[in-house]
Amino acid sequence: MSEIGGSPASNNTRYPYYYGPEGRLVLVDSALEAVSRGSTTIGIKTPTFALISSHIKPTRALVEPAEKVFAIDQHIGATGSGYIGDILQLMDEMRIASQKHRLSYESPIDVNSLAKYLSSYLHNYTIYAVRPQAASIIISGRDQTGIQLYQVDPSGTYFRGSGFAIGHYSDIALDVLQRGYSPELSIDEAIALGNKAIEKALDEGPVVETGIVTVKDGVFKKLANPQSNE
Amino acid sequence: MSEIGGSPASNNTRYPYYYGPEGRLVLVDSALEAVSRGSTTIGIKTPTFALISSHIKPTRALVEPAEKVFAIDQHIGATGSGYIGDILQLMDEMRIASQKHRLSYESPIDVNSLAKYLSSYLHNYTIYAVRPQAASIIISGRDQTGIQLYQVDPSGTYFRGSGFAIGHYSDIALDVLQRGYSPELSIDEAIALGNKAIEKALDEGPVVETGIVTVKDGVFKKLANPQSNE
Amino acid sequence: MSEIGGSPASNNTRYPYYYGPEGRLVLVDSALEAVSRGSTTIGIKTPTFALISSHIKPTRALVEPAEKVFAIDQHIGATGSGYIGDILQLMDEMRIASQKHRLSYESPIDVNSLAKYLSSYLHNYTIYAVRPQAASIIISGRDQTGIQLYQVDPSGTYFRGSGFAIGHYSDIALDVLQRGYSPELSIDEAIALGNKAIEKALDEGPVVETGIVTVKDGVFKKLANPQSNE
Amino acid sequence: MSEIGGSPASNNTRYPYYYGPEGRLVLVDSALEAVSRGSTTIGIKTPTFALISSHIKPTRALVEPAEKVFAIDQHIGATGSGYIGDILQLMDEMRIASQKHRLSYESPIDVNSLAKYLSSYLHNYTIYAVRPQAASIIISGRDQTGIQLYQVDPSGTYFRGSGFAIGHYSDIALDVLQRGYSPELSIDEAIALGNKAIEKALDEGPVVETGIVTVKDGVFKKLANPQSNE
Amino acid sequence: MSEIGGSPASNNTRYPYYYGPEGRLVLVDSALEAVSRGSTTIGIKTPTFALISSHIKPTRALVEPAEKVFAIDQHIGATGSGYIGDILQLMDEMRIASQKHRLSYESPIDVNSLAKYLSSYLHNYTIYAVRPQAASIIISGRDQTGIQLYQVDPSGTYFRGSGFAIGHYSDIALDVLQRGYSPELSIDEAIALGNKAIEKALDEGPVVETGIVTVKDGVFKKLANPQSNE
Amino acid sequence: MSEIGGSPASNNTRYPYYYGPEGRLVLVDSALEAVSRGSTTIGIKTPTFALISSHIKPTRALVEPAEKVFAIDQHIGATGSGYIGDILQLMDEMRIASQKHRLSYESPIDVNSLAKYLSSYLHNYTIYAVRPQAASIIISGRDQTGIQLYQVDPSGTYFRGSGFAIGHYSDIALDVLQRGYSPELSIDEAIALGNKAIEKALDEGPVVETGIVTVKDGVFKKLANPQSNE
Amino acid sequence: MSEIGGSPASNNTRYPYYYGPEGRLVLVDSALEAVSRGSTTIGIKTPTFALISSHIKPTRALVEPAEKVFAIDQHIGATGSGYIGDILQLMDEMRIASQKHRLSYESPIDVNSLAKYLSSYLHNYTIYAVRPQAASIIISGRDQTGIQLYQVDPSGTYFRGSGFAIGHYSDIALDVLQRGYSPELSIDEAIALGNKAIEKALDEGPVVETGIVTVKDGVFKKLANPQSNE
Repeated sequence: MSEIGGSPASNNTRYPYYYGPEGRLVLVDSALEAVSRGSTTIGIKTPTFALISSHIKPTRALVEPAEKVFAIDQHIGATGSGYIGDILQLMDEMRIASQKHRLSYESPIDVNSLAKYLSSYLHNYTIYAVRPQAASIIISGRDQTGIQLYQVDPSGTYFRGSGFAIGHYSDIALDVLQRGYSPELSIDEAIALGNKAIEKALDEGPVVETGIVTVKDGVFKKLANPQSNE
Repeated sequence: MSEIGGSPASNNTRYPYYYGPEGRLVLVDSALEAVSRGSTTIGIKTPTFALISSHIKPTRALVEPAEKVFAIDQHIGATGSGYIGDILQLMDEMRIASQKHRLSYESPIDVNSLAKYLSSYLHNYTIYAVRPQAASIIISGRDQTGIQLYQVDPSGTYFRGSGFAIGHYSDIALDVLQRGYSPELSIDEAIALGNKAIEKALDEGPVVETGIVTVKDGVFKKLANPQSNE
Repeated sequence: MSEIGGSPASNNTRYPYYYGPEGRLVLVDSALEAVSRGSTTIGIKTPTFALISSHIKPTRALVEPAEKVFAIDQHIGATGSGYIGDILQLMDEMRIASQKHRLSYESPIDVNSLAKYLSSYLHNYTIYAVRPQAASIIISGRDQTGIQLYQVDPSGTYFRGSGFAIGHYSDIALDVLQRGYSPELSIDEAIALGNKAIEKALDEGPVVETGIVTVKDGVFKKLANPQSNE
Repeated sequence: MSEIGGSPASNNTRYPYYYGPEGRLVLVDSALEAVSRGSTTIGIKTPTFALISSHIKPTRALVEPAEKVFAIDQHIGATGSGYIGDILQLMDEMRIASQKHRLSYESPIDVNSLAKYLSSYLHNYTIYAVRPQAASIIISGRDQTGIQLYQVDPSGTYFRGSGFAIGHYSDIALDVLQRGYSPELSIDEAIALGNKAIEKALDEGPVVETGIVTVKDGVFKKLANPQSNE
Repeated sequence: MSEIGGSPASNNTRYPYYYGPEGRLVLVDSALEAVSRGSTTIGIKTPTFALISSHIKPTRALVEPAEKVFAIDQHIGATGSGYIGDILQLMDEMRIASQKHRLSYESPIDVNSLAKYLSSYLHNYTIYAVRPQAASIIISGRDQTGIQLYQVDPSGTYFRGSGFAIGHYSDIALDVLQRGYSPELSIDEAIALGNKAIEKALDEGPVVETGIVTVKDGVFKKLANPQSNE
Repeated sequence: MSEIGGSPASNNTRYPYYYGPEGRLVLVDSALEAVSRGSTTIGIKTPTFALISSHIKPTRALVEPAEKVFAIDQHIGATGSGYIGDILQLMDEMRIASQKHRLSYESPIDVNSLAKYLSSYLHNYTIYAVRPQAASIIISGRDQTGIQLYQVDPSGTYFRGSGFAIGHYSDIALDVLQRGYSPELSIDEAIALGNKAIEKALDEGPVVETGIVTVKDGVFKKLANPQSNE
Repeated sequence: MSEIGGSPASNNTRYPYYYGPEGRLVLVDSALEAVSRGSTTIGIKTPTFALISSHIKPTRALVEPAEKVFAIDQHIGATGSGYIGDILQLMDEMRIASQKHRLSYESPIDVNSLAKYLSSYLHNYTIYAVRPQAASIIISGRDQTGIQLYQVDPSGTYFRGSGFAIGHYSDIALDVLQRGYSPELSIDEAIALGNKAIEKALDEGPVVETGIVTVKDGVFKKLANPQSNE
């Protein structure tokens, strides 16, 4: 679209910092690679509830497993996959955004706004010479539009949907979700489906942490204890 | 034009950061390469309406397709091709510029001003050591000059026209538009033409998202549902 | 001139960022290379008028050709060759400088001052670690000294003259101008001469955009429509 | 998750600054490598007390061993492994955070808040072009929730648990802790277990420095003298 | 002079940015190389007048030759050799310094102060990571100490003298000046000598621009027209 | 401790700026290497006095040996080894810190506080993209806790002890100190021991500069003249 | 002194910016190399006077030799060797420091304070990513402590003494000074000794510039004309 013709820079040119071959964002690709090695993590949404669930890697004895499912606000919970330090930082960022919204507007933030905020926050890290955050986040919540489920990626891209899987072998987990999903799933069926997806991805009966928000009471709750679905 | 003679730096010189061989802007070329791999996206303008339409890549089951057509202001809509994170950020930037114009001048921004604003915004990213945005944008709208259609590229270049295609195999899509275009096209004919252009580029019957603004009511509206034109 | 003797750094030294072999400014050379691939663009000045004219590359059907001749102020017009994004940015910069002059001094800026301002603006981009602008600009106007024609280059160099050519095969175009120029040219003869210069450079009958300012009314006007001189 | 297809950047690409192959954070990996060469250091928690203990490398005669166990506030103590300069700096940072909390809220900081603060502080050093701190920290304390034990790593990750080991051959030390741990351990038994863990890791009877906080008086106290457990 | 012995870094060390082998300032060397390819330019001083003269490269027909001799203040003129953009910028800098002096002290700046100011201004560009200016400047003027002639180089070095030559083949031009110089030269003889120096350096009868300041009226004046001394 | 598995970056990775193989801080290692080539310097502490002594390299005739032992405050003296420019700068920094303490608290700074201040000051230079200071410092003084002796290193690490040696062949000097040390040493015996340590390290009878502070009068005094202990 | 063992980074590691092999400051070494190629320059001090003298390289005919000996304040003079631009800048810096001292304390600065100020000023340029100044300076003066002579180097190191030589073949010059020096030298004998030292170093009868300050009147004076000691 430039008025200057000729073929684009050939392949043996020294590509500068941000972009790699084929116009790829190499730092973002690296962050996504890190995510693809994180805990297998899923989200399921039906018209009446949303459930998020993340594999808890077998930690050493005597160490409490790190929290993987986080309450962001009364009506919103989130989980993520990637570098734990980055996940923790993004959870804090979302909590602060939610609190600010309550202070400014005297009403809870809606899920879409929070997902867009996180998307824009992550996008910023792809432009300047800092490190893009190596974490994908799944956000679940209930607002005046009902139950919502979002996925936000290191590039600042976000998706709305009824089923997401991120992290290690997430394609296998997603395949399980897609085959077993129905909007009529009960909560127990959804928990079983999520566990099965993570189990298939990891080829073992893993321990997971799970959180649920229902359209009925609209409060995000973590299930009491990390569960082994063996 | 310098008073210092001699031939320019030979080819085996270590080219510095911004420019590549033949004076090409290598970062902008990379951004354009990224755009050329984005969703096939078109715009069509007649004296009575403008239509923008973007291919929605087959997303995974359970995931709602990402929004590709955006209302910027009541009278303006836009779409784009490239990195979704960058597209989202530019849409937000245009929305803010439109709102600021309303606040400052108590009148809607005209389409040309918005395109120039976006052009200048994108150009800035090509000068400093940050990343040029990897997205081309098509803007459609109606103002006191009638129906307008613009394309803005990562280098900050903008075009006004009656038919644009960007993204994957956009040359094929553009060829279809050029052959089928007439200023007397009805809205339905234009939708069909746009769908055909995207279909030819992708060699399959794709799902598209479409938005239209007419000279009559001057309100940008997205067509109800992403449509498969199979 | 340093008190330290010995021969300068040998050729196989790693040349630092700004300078290349023989003390050349490599980034500026790259910008000039980009200009040399831009649209063929000319300017002609006689005592009674100045004319600027730029080749409009055959754009795709349905796309309005990009504006290449710009009114800067009532009495000044400009055109350029190089990256369109850079040209647009420089045109805006000149417009703002002209407006500021009117506000500060309640009189129109004279053409020489504007050319010096642009020269200094461009020079700044050659000193710091940013990108020199890849555009040469031809400025035409009328002020109290009469008709003026200037060329300003990415290095910040400027020239005053009666005939300029920049862009693709500008040496051929300049040769035509030099052979055909006379201070007694009528406007029509000058238009014909400019068209011929661009045509010779491109070896085809191109479409051009043209603007003229005369000593009589001192108002810069673009000719109604881009003209094909076939 | 980007709309741009194709395989990620191949392995022979020049990986940029922050990320290495497989999306690893190379600077953080280096900091962790430094920690893995630091003093073997452990922490043990039962419902009634927490104990932290760090190997004191045989220093030269005439040199007092460097302090490895630090009182942070009346109710909190910490130790660490890695570069001593970094450890000292983090201890100061935690002391200041504790004092600020007392001034702002007129109450002692709880252990979880302090661990999260340190985590966020360390995470910041992984994003910008500065050096991630090369130290892992174990924090012990008693607050209104009882006895707490945390480990915080250079990446900003933190863990809560009943037994931690960091530094040289920490896997061996951890194995000893896991085999010998019981929530019914007496303080003397815990001291013996910690000493045994460090001894096994180092394959010699080392000198250690130890600090303890009990649920009873809630005051962190260092054991009188570094002890040799030969 | 450091207390640390041993030989300095060997030659195969990666020399850092500013310095090259043998402690040379590589960027300044590059700037000087650029100067050595600039227009041949000379200055001549006798007790009664100073003359500066610069070769004007044969420009294209229709282009007015670029100004090479500049009035800085009523009593001072300057010329230079190197990149024209840099020369223009330095001339502006000297003009501003002269005006500021008049405003602050209500008296004209003396030539030595101006040369020192320019020297310090240029030196600054050699310390930081910006580009040293690629221009040597010859300053002529008359102040209360009589007629003065200075040369200032990109490194910030300055010289006072009765004859200078810079630019292309300046060693040849200087040789002519040295052989022909006498403090009793008349203005016409000095003009002839300067022209001869430039002519010898270029091996042709070149066009030059010349300026003169005399002790009598103390006003710097450019000779009416660039002169060909063929 | 990250949730992302796999082996750390392999050895042939391009290690980034701060860290080298095995997590070593390469710039700090370089600073320590510089210290290990500095003047052999020792400190000795008994309950009744502290003595610091530094080898004075044979300077050229006519040059006074550089000061190596510095009074910091009335009750504190210091010496160092490494780059003299860095040592001088750190001495000034300590003097200013001592004066500030007197102004703020109207009491002399205690030796431990000063050592921690210097430690933190040096640590800062290891984090950002500046140069870590290439100097180790020995601080001696008397405060309300009695006689104190500290060593502070470029990494920000500090030690308290009764005998230190830094600089060239400091391991040999330290060995002499360790063999000959007794808390009952008289001042004369300590001076002899220190001289012997430096002599052994250098294998010659060197000139040293010495300073002493006693518990009795608590005033740091330099011995009258640099002494040759031949 | 770090708690992390192992050998320092091996030689084939990519040494970072500031430090080279063996902990050498590579930029400072380069600056010293530049000094070692500067004009041979000496200083001689007796109890009754100090003399500084610098070789003036044979400049071109018609060019006044650059000033090499500078009056800093009434009672202080200085000279230097290295890049002239850097020397000039340091002379200005010392003049300003002297003037500031007079304004603040209403008394002349003593020579030691000025040398320390210059030392600290130069040291700063070795820490940050700027260029260390390539000049060594010899300062002579008389204050209430009598006659003083100092040498300050690019690293910020300074020396006090009775005889210094810097610049080209300064070791030879220094050898001559050391053999011929006596505190009973008369001024004429000292001038002769200094000239002989420079002559031996250069193996020819050079032109020198000389300045002297005596304990009697305490005013620094340059000898009337640069002298040839042939």
